[in-house]
Amino acid sequence: VPNSQLFIPAELIKYKRDGGTLTDGEIKKFVDGYTKGEVPDYQMSALLMAIFFRGMSEKETLALTQTMLFSGQILNLESISAFKVDKHSTGGVGDKTSLVVAPIVAAAGAVVPMISGRGLGHTGGTLDKLEAIPGFNTQLDVKTFESHLKKHGLCFIGQTPEICPADRKLYALRDVTGTVENIPLICASIMSKKLAEGIDGLVLDVKFGSGAFMKTFDKAKNLAFTLKNIGQMSGKKVTALLTSMDQPLGKAIGNSLEVEECIEILKGGGPADCRELCLELAAHMLMVANKATSVDAARKRATDLLDGRRALIKFEEIVKAQGGDLSKLPRAKKHLEIHAEQDGFVSSINTEAFGIASLILGGGRLKASDKIDPVVGITTEKKLGSQVRRGETLATLHFNEDKNTNLASAKVLEAYKFSLQKTEPEPLIKAVL
Amino acid sequence: VPNSQLFIPAELIKYKRDGGTLTDGEIKKFVDGYTKGEVPDYQMSALLMAIFFRGMSEKETLALTQTMLFSGQILNLESISAFKVDKHSTGGVGDKTSLVVAPIVAAAGAVVPMISGRGLGHTGGTLDKLEAIPGFNTQLDVKTFESHLKKHGLCFIGQTPEICPADRKLYALRDVTGTVENIPLICASIMSKKLAEGIDGLVLDVKFGSGAFMKTFDKAKNLAFTLKNIGQMSGKKVTALLTSMDQPLGKAIGNSLEVEECIEILKGGGPADCRELCLELAAHMLMVANKATSVDAARKRATDLLDGRRALIKFEEIVKAQGGDLSKLPRAKKHLEIHAEQDGFVSSINTEAFGIASLILGGGRLKASDKIDPVVGITTEKKLGSQVRRGETLATLHFNEDKNTNLASAKVLEAYKFSLQKTEPEPLIKAVL
Repeated sequence: VPNSQLFIPAELIKYKRDGGTLTDGEIKKFVDGYTKGEVPDYQMSALLMAIFFRGMSEKETLALTQTMLFSGQILNLESISAFKVDKHSTGGVGDKTSLVVAPIVAAAGAVVPMISGRGLGHTGGTLDKLEAIPGFNTQLDVKTFESHLKKHGLCFIGQTPEICPADRKLYALRDVTGTVENIPLICASIMSKKLAEGIDGLVLDVKFGSGAFMKTFDKAKNLAFTLKNIGQMSGKKVTALLTSMDQPLGKAIGNSLEVEECIEILKGGGPADCRELCLELAAHMLMVANKATSVDAARKRATDLLDGRRALIKFEEIVKAQGGDLSKLPRAKKHLEIHAEQDGFVSSINTEAFGIASLILGGGRLKASDKIDPVVGITTEKKLGSQVRRGETLATLHFNEDKNTNLASAKVLEAYKFSLQKTEPEPLIKAVL
Repeated sequence: VPNSQLFIPAELIKYKRDGGTLTDGEIKKFVDGYTKGEVPDYQMSALLMAIFFRGMSEKETLALTQTMLFSGQILNLESISAFKVDKHSTGGVGDKTSLVVAPIVAAAGAVVPMISGRGLGHTGGTLDKLEAIPGFNTQLDVKTFESHLKKHGLCFIGQTPEICPADRKLYALRDVTGTVENIPLICASIMSKKLAEGIDGLVLDVKFGSGAFMKTFDKAKNLAFTLKNIGQMSGKKVTALLTSMDQPLGKAIGNSLEVEECIEILKGGGPADCRELCLELAAHMLMVANKATSVDAARKRATDLLDGRRALIKFEEIVKAQGGDLSKLPRAKKHLEIHAEQDGFVSSINTEAFGIASLILGGGRLKASDKIDPVVGITTEKKLGSQVRRGETLATLHFNEDKNTNLASAKVLEAYKFSLQKTEPEPLIKAVL
């Protein structure tokens, strides 16, 4: 705001509303004021909506990210000399790659300080998946996290209240004021939390398609560019993959079921698509961590670590270190198969519907305080392009309590569209930035 | 919001944000919920900002107006059989016409139930002007208001807390969230209050120019169209005038000074521009009230009532009825003349600067709780196009306390721009809708 000595929130809102660019200092005062409760919710939500329409420059986005980052604790992992690399996915259905990728990369000697979130709406969360393993403790304090990283090269924890309090307050406000779907705001929210981890590099898995937050490739690409830029301007090595979420990843959706599928992959098996994406992500993490000189070499290293079961051993080591017992992984007692009502080739899948179906069966949450049943979920048998005969099993619901099973099975059945001729789906990994 | 049975404020915000049109019921639920405190400020401010960018259809604007209107008391003046007509100005500097126009129209036999506001920022308010008259009581209850209207055909009061509480709450929020400058929101705020007066017709004086809220003719015209449409859709007879606020109206700015100028006009004298606008507004009010069959005839009737002092007698009757004593009108003890520093023709006047100068001398308010000194003000000697010689008086400051006089005189001096050749100003009355 030109010629302004005083900080007047309404003037900043008007300036952004009319297409102006805020200074770093103005963004800091507004967001810090909001975090401390000095700027009221109603002024922040008006600014957020103005940002929704007017956007933010790269410099503004960086200032917002930095303000949110410095609103809380930033982990100092300088005592760990190895390269520290993390992976972040923008979220999808059946997206369980962290549980495979992180052990591969840790087995290669890099350090993976993984701070993850919980699932909300139709998307799953890494923490929920890990907590399906009886005893697995994700609520470690920062000291324990650091000592696990030194000892094992990998530790999975949840966000602590000390990390990015500004993001927590802002996200809750955005959620109820229609200001979630905006690239600079999404970027600042993701990157402030990742930068707080004390990492040296980051691989981003930005999803597009019917099960992703970003429905189109172009929108996802814009987000990926912004995330990568903000990461690089903050001094981190960043690679971003753009990957399809036009169908659930792998076969399993649901927390316990997804852990089982990860173990299959860690044993050298599992669904091809999920194995493929895990190897690609791991290869790029190894590149970022200077563990290979070419993506091909990195890819070969990752494949060897996976097929040689080094990653499985690492995963089992981590589960044990964090108190989990894989032998007690729970399984659902009841199953309901969903059968095709026609012949044809699967031409499209409403991926979000699978997330919603799993949610209403009790495997997800609508609001943060909802409880999850870890055994609930869905396994899918047919991929895009698969030939299907009438009566064949498309998918199976897994549950213990008969809750919303009719609704969920209808949703899953409706999610499939068929064609007479086989159509080729989008490539799983469409671009690397 | 399609397919929505539940009222979820965040969904309505998103729908409007994405360019959707809200139903009457959705607008009513949101605004009523806000007025009752069930919808929080931060959701309302996000919706207001979305409306700022996406606008509102005429139907949405009408629904908002109606919801605000029905949030409070609506005066029932059905026991008064005469045509009830009011005038509303969007506000300006030196705009004192109500004190002349209302008595003319009442003297012609129409009833003028005038509920006015106070000044804020650089604009004056009718209530403040009337209250410069010692003893004048604008805080009458609705019963007394009605009995005065029956007896005198005219009564001036301030808004009661029972009228349009939704507007009061919304306006306060808009003021601090950068959502004031939007035509549908301005329209709903003005019209809900006017419709609550129980009038049959309305004449709008929509100002444009350097001293107006709308700086350009086109914006003012859009507002005038919207105001007129909403008024007509609510079953009222409405005429809108578009008048220039590129210079202060008349010579006097400031409450007591403006009352004095009005009395001059009511005696057949006074500045030509202000007299002209008063007669034009009165003529259109007489047309709306079916007191004449042509604007020319109405204009002649208004002129006769003014020059025959019937309007003056009516004004004196009203002042007395509301407890005022015109003989005690206060005058400032100190004066400071501002002299031209060059020769030339007045080519432009920053009208808003006069409002601000009067405000900082103590004649206006920055916030609603500020106190006003009624004697403070400015009289101007030169109009747009006037020839000025160096050393001539441009304007005079009036005050009792020496507060900000240097700053105010600098502001007034800077407000004038001169040219070597005479330029013609915009016509005072540019259009009638």
